Amino acid sequence: MEALVLERKDELSLRDFPQIDRDEAVLGPRDVRIKLHTVGICGSDVHYYTHGRIGPFVVNAPMILGHEASGTVIETGSEVTTLKPGDRVCMEPGIPDPNSRATRLGLYNIDPAVRFWATPPVHGILRPTCVHPEAFTFKLPDNVSFAEAAMVEPLAVGVHAATKARIRPGDIGVVLGAGPIGLVTALSALAAGCARVYVTDLAEKKLEIAASLSPAIIPVHAARESITDRVKAETGGWGADVVFEATGAPKAAAGVFEPLAPGGCVVMIGGQPDPISYDAGAAMVREARVENIFRYAHVFPRCVSMLASGAIDVKPLITRTFDFKDSVRAFEIAASAPPADVKMQIELPQ
Amino acid sequence: MEALVLERKDELSLRDFPQIDRDEAVLGPRDVRIKLHTVGICGSDVHYYTHGRIGPFVVNAPMILGHEASGTVIETGSEVTTLKPGDRVCMEPGIPDPNSRATRLGLYNIDPAVRFWATPPVHGILRPTCVHPEAFTFKLPDNVSFAEAAMVEPLAVGVHAATKARIRPGDIGVVLGAGPIGLVTALSALAAGCARVYVTDLAEKKLEIAASLSPAIIPVHAARESITDRVKAETGGWGADVVFEATGAPKAAAGVFEPLAPGGCVVMIGGQPDPISYDAGAAMVREARVENIFRYAHVFPRCVSMLASGAIDVKPLITRTFDFKDSVRAFEIAASAPPADVKMQIELPQ
Amino acid sequence: MEALVLERKDELSLRDFPQIDRDEAVLGPRDVRIKLHTVGICGSDVHYYTHGRIGPFVVNAPMILGHEASGTVIETGSEVTTLKPGDRVCMEPGIPDPNSRATRLGLYNIDPAVRFWATPPVHGILRPTCVHPEAFTFKLPDNVSFAEAAMVEPLAVGVHAATKARIRPGDIGVVLGAGPIGLVTALSALAAGCARVYVTDLAEKKLEIAASLSPAIIPVHAARESITDRVKAETGGWGADVVFEATGAPKAAAGVFEPLAPGGCVVMIGGQPDPISYDAGAAMVREARVENIFRYAHVFPRCVSMLASGAIDVKPLITRTFDFKDSVRAFEIAASAPPADVKMQIELPQ
Amino acid sequence: MEALVLERKDELSLRDFPQIDRDEAVLGPRDVRIKLHTVGICGSDVHYYTHGRIGPFVVNAPMILGHEASGTVIETGSEVTTLKPGDRVCMEPGIPDPNSRATRLGLYNIDPAVRFWATPPVHGILRPTCVHPEAFTFKLPDNVSFAEAAMVEPLAVGVHAATKARIRPGDIGVVLGAGPIGLVTALSALAAGCARVYVTDLAEKKLEIAASLSPAIIPVHAARESITDRVKAETGGWGADVVFEATGAPKAAAGVFEPLAPGGCVVMIGGQPDPISYDAGAAMVREARVENIFRYAHVFPRCVSMLASGAIDVKPLITRTFDFKDSVRAFEIAASAPPADVKMQIELPQ
Repeated sequence: MEALVLERKDELSLRDFPQIDRDEAVLGPRDVRIKLHTVGICGSDVHYYTHGRIGPFVVNAPMILGHEASGTVIETGSEVTTLKPGDRVCMEPGIPDPNSRATRLGLYNIDPAVRFWATPPVHGILRPTCVHPEAFTFKLPDNVSFAEAAMVEPLAVGVHAATKARIRPGDIGVVLGAGPIGLVTALSALAAGCARVYVTDLAEKKLEIAASLSPAIIPVHAARESITDRVKAETGGWGADVVFEATGAPKAAAGVFEPLAPGGCVVMIGGQPDPISYDAGAAMVREARVENIFRYAHVFPRCVSMLASGAIDVKPLITRTFDFKDSVRAFEIAASAPPADVKMQIELPQ
Repeated sequence: MEALVLERKDELSLRDFPQIDRDEAVLGPRDVRIKLHTVGICGSDVHYYTHGRIGPFVVNAPMILGHEASGTVIETGSEVTTLKPGDRVCMEPGIPDPNSRATRLGLYNIDPAVRFWATPPVHGILRPTCVHPEAFTFKLPDNVSFAEAAMVEPLAVGVHAATKARIRPGDIGVVLGAGPIGLVTALSALAAGCARVYVTDLAEKKLEIAASLSPAIIPVHAARESITDRVKAETGGWGADVVFEATGAPKAAAGVFEPLAPGGCVVMIGGQPDPISYDAGAAMVREARVENIFRYAHVFPRCVSMLASGAIDVKPLITRTFDFKDSVRAFEIAASAPPADVKMQIELPQ
Repeated sequence: MEALVLERKDELSLRDFPQIDRDEAVLGPRDVRIKLHTVGICGSDVHYYTHGRIGPFVVNAPMILGHEASGTVIETGSEVTTLKPGDRVCMEPGIPDPNSRATRLGLYNIDPAVRFWATPPVHGILRPTCVHPEAFTFKLPDNVSFAEAAMVEPLAVGVHAATKARIRPGDIGVVLGAGPIGLVTALSALAAGCARVYVTDLAEKKLEIAASLSPAIIPVHAARESITDRVKAETGGWGADVVFEATGAPKAAAGVFEPLAPGGCVVMIGGQPDPISYDAGAAMVREARVENIFRYAHVFPRCVSMLASGAIDVKPLITRTFDFKDSVRAFEIAASAPPADVKMQIELPQ
Repeated sequence: MEALVLERKDELSLRDFPQIDRDEAVLGPRDVRIKLHTVGICGSDVHYYTHGRIGPFVVNAPMILGHEASGTVIETGSEVTTLKPGDRVCMEPGIPDPNSRATRLGLYNIDPAVRFWATPPVHGILRPTCVHPEAFTFKLPDNVSFAEAAMVEPLAVGVHAATKARIRPGDIGVVLGAGPIGLVTALSALAAGCARVYVTDLAEKKLEIAASLSPAIIPVHAARESITDRVKAETGGWGADVVFEATGAPKAAAGVFEPLAPGGCVVMIGGQPDPISYDAGAAMVREARVENIFRYAHVFPRCVSMLASGAIDVKPLITRTFDFKDSVRAFEIAASAPPADVKMQIELPQ
């Protein structure tokens, strides 16, 4: 099976990877076999390519990349009831231990035993086919394209963040950071009830893209204008009901409470390798609630429903598409900073 | 002051009402005086007209009608800080006792001492001016019209219902009843995160209006199709996450649990004069949560923000507008069943 | 294997039941084999004995009774990690499908596929040994006796009800009904934060037992005194924050909103075979939240912790203990109305 | 009126303070006049004495100390309905602006306009009488003593913290810090449903007091044993459901996530003058929720109910009582570090 393999830091190759054929020869009773159609390139894929590791996860052996995926079911296990060959699907990349305490409680995303595509030592899915559990494979309605479906994985982060924020209709939101995750979070916050969402960034181009997504998204250039002053001026001094930290930058994270209203909620989305500064006094006088999120749980079918009904439109975020044979070049482009692109995707031959 | 007065059951007159001038001669320090611009006709106004009472509230003396209103501030009390003459505003019609236990807890809508416009013995606002507390008067942005602003009151019921439901993004909703409250509830449920909302009714015309509001609203004719079968068929047998009862009809209310998913929520909006039938077994096997709502609290400024940003559009619901001088005729039309209209409004001379 | 078998309605026998030996000959990798020690007699066991059915569940073939149990692990499957032979344990009687949608969401108690001991066609555990999944078998600390541990199952209903009520410290509670479930609910409500709990019943003896459990439990004889008047008099007219319906009597259920405070919560515990009367108006003016519960989920280890720490003491509820050889007589006594006993238990030979 | 006056940093005097007589000569219609009985000494009172300021609050003029109080109503305003002369009461020391946005939402404790006793420039109540709003004055049942009632103020912090944590019955709690606030938090966490609470400190004596309060409180000496190791060992590796930070020490606060279970909650109670270190990675992998609290809201009557019913017993925390004439000496003792005492109180002449 030909796959996009990260041989080691800085070295990618598109080559045969026979081990996968052996590993996935047999289909479990609750599994399905999927022909991949579209795979998005995530910042984490690029980071493994350029750094060879993310925190404690180190690429010690050749690993197939890719975890944002859609495709078509081509074979089903003996006990599968909700899918059949020919079904168009998207897939959740993390598979938990169904018997773990966290999973039983419904918190499968924080089960330490979760196996996640393209996270060493688990292979990703930039390859022709894969085997996956029925329970984490979701059928697509006809009006959701493979390209949109491959956006469900990043969108799920935003939808999970908006869910944990417990947004009430008419809330005022702030999203710090207009990268791909910041943008899906802004869209999710609007879909979840925010009246409007202020999005900050330092890159003009990213703010333009943000502003183009909805008239209810208000771009704020973080170096030229204080988000706190802006939000307070436009809320009678009250502040934002929800602030999403989606930069992963310690400096931005240190200021999350400033634009927050009394009784408001901060959602920490951006990963932080080191401890950050926390303004406990500012948090206290507002009685802020802080939700720290890790990936997502239970939101894939919700995302599919929202794409199908038009509640969320991710198509403007898909800015470039490559053929599978050009995968290595796609990653080279994705790794060259700073991209005007939001999301690049790779299409596999059908 | 000329006002639309319900003299007694079935008798309306547009006439001078001097008592109001005397009552409102003096402005309190935290009050504002408002020149009314637009007033919507609510089903409760019509019900007082045609029945002379609603439950325990009986019209025993001539009463001015109207409680869905927008206008312009023309005078402010000495301690008012957030409004000034010339501000365009909408007003919340219920004024609670600020010292009651419910109000202190933030539950002012269920304060038994609340005084509500056009609920005997409190007069409504189908008249040139009124005096109102600053705290329940909300400034309008330039892009929200007086007509839209007078829709905030009914919209608030829908937004409050959606808030109490604690909708999560991607939920599937059902609204029983496509009257004005059913429609604003459907719009609110979508704005609050529902991927799609099924709306039922027995009147074809109402379902057409519902369907025209959004592609994510799915009309279901309650006499021709089972809402339960339809929802289950389109959710893999799971059911709806939220069911809103907005008919006030005992028969519809008796079936609220049927289309509900495990762990789902029912919101009872429609008033019921008598006890209804409650299928405790069906509620139990789903561990249903039931929220019973009464008017709204804290949502007027949220509604204004959502109208301003386009998160909710109520303009299609405003189907007819009358001059104040034609108020009596407007009520006669509104009282003639069944109206193809959703919301009729009355404009006062400026 | 000798077992207490309900041959058919009204006919019990203590006799050999070879089928179970065959069914449980092989231990799954995640299962444990348990030597039963103590089994409580539940009202549902008695109801199957005296009526041959509960709602749709009909005893069509001989069935072993019993589902409130504790015992000792005597064998473990190959993948079991948290238990070992010799561990004293209690067991959750319902086993869900781990792959169902409800179970994945953490709502395993409302998974329609759940298999529950002593619910036709699933056998109960009034027999020497049983095989059970590790995930639903909970180790006991040394200071929790087998008798207390066999009380965890009914206690779990009360703790689940108190959890769903989201009791806040200092709440005032009402429990309608002083049967075994009413009593464990009262204890759970106090442990969960209620300052005091009013318990109603029509049986003087049951109220005496209730009052003996804690000085914070206040007995109210429902035929001699209005619970609403009493609660309102002692809360400055405000009412109770939480009302638990634990009678299963339609008449009691019809009045659940009367003693409830504005913004309060009603928890429906008692099963109701038919639809009940629901005072929608009373629910609405209070904006009551109603939680309908079904058994319990995730609370067994919580109950064990509370018994161990003394947060809840169930020992006074265990009023009589029989030898296994006297099981049939124990059921005959339990079926003779009305028992002064709260909970009868059966001890198996060790 | 004789009062305990902080003249300036380090200088206390018990002397006549005529301004108060003038300020409080007239009773508002919703106010009551109270003869003070017992006043507790809070760490903040002592801090003003020894430092002359707390953060932005600076003692620039002589200020009466004291804010933990109970007493007897001696006069009532014309509109007071719930209290009468002779009623024994305790009082909430912070009075918000009833018209502020935060207060209307029920969040009066975070209203920036709140006026709080013994916080410059507002005087405290170490004096014979005071005038206070009825709404923040709470009647005591006969079985709650003045001394216990003067403990309601510090207890309210613990109860508010436990309420915000949304403790579920059977939770495992950790309280960092065994000072007065740590101890009332531990008692509140138990009353709110925790099965057991681990309390850490560096002072042996404080841990002994903690352990003496309940068999469900487990003392852990923070320098001799890792709280994380201890909790994980006794929860099968899972961790604590709730961690309360009550030390105010940056080092302790930096480690709040370590003993926390997946999906758990951290409550930040201890004030922090400077930003602290926040282990975002540890928070994220657990999807921790963090609640930051500021004083309390709506809990005084709840505390009174729990003291009356025995749900919480604060008597063991009252370790020494002084006569009003010995107030200065009482503060000198309280200021001498480290006290074996938990709570010192002052009794006024009756």
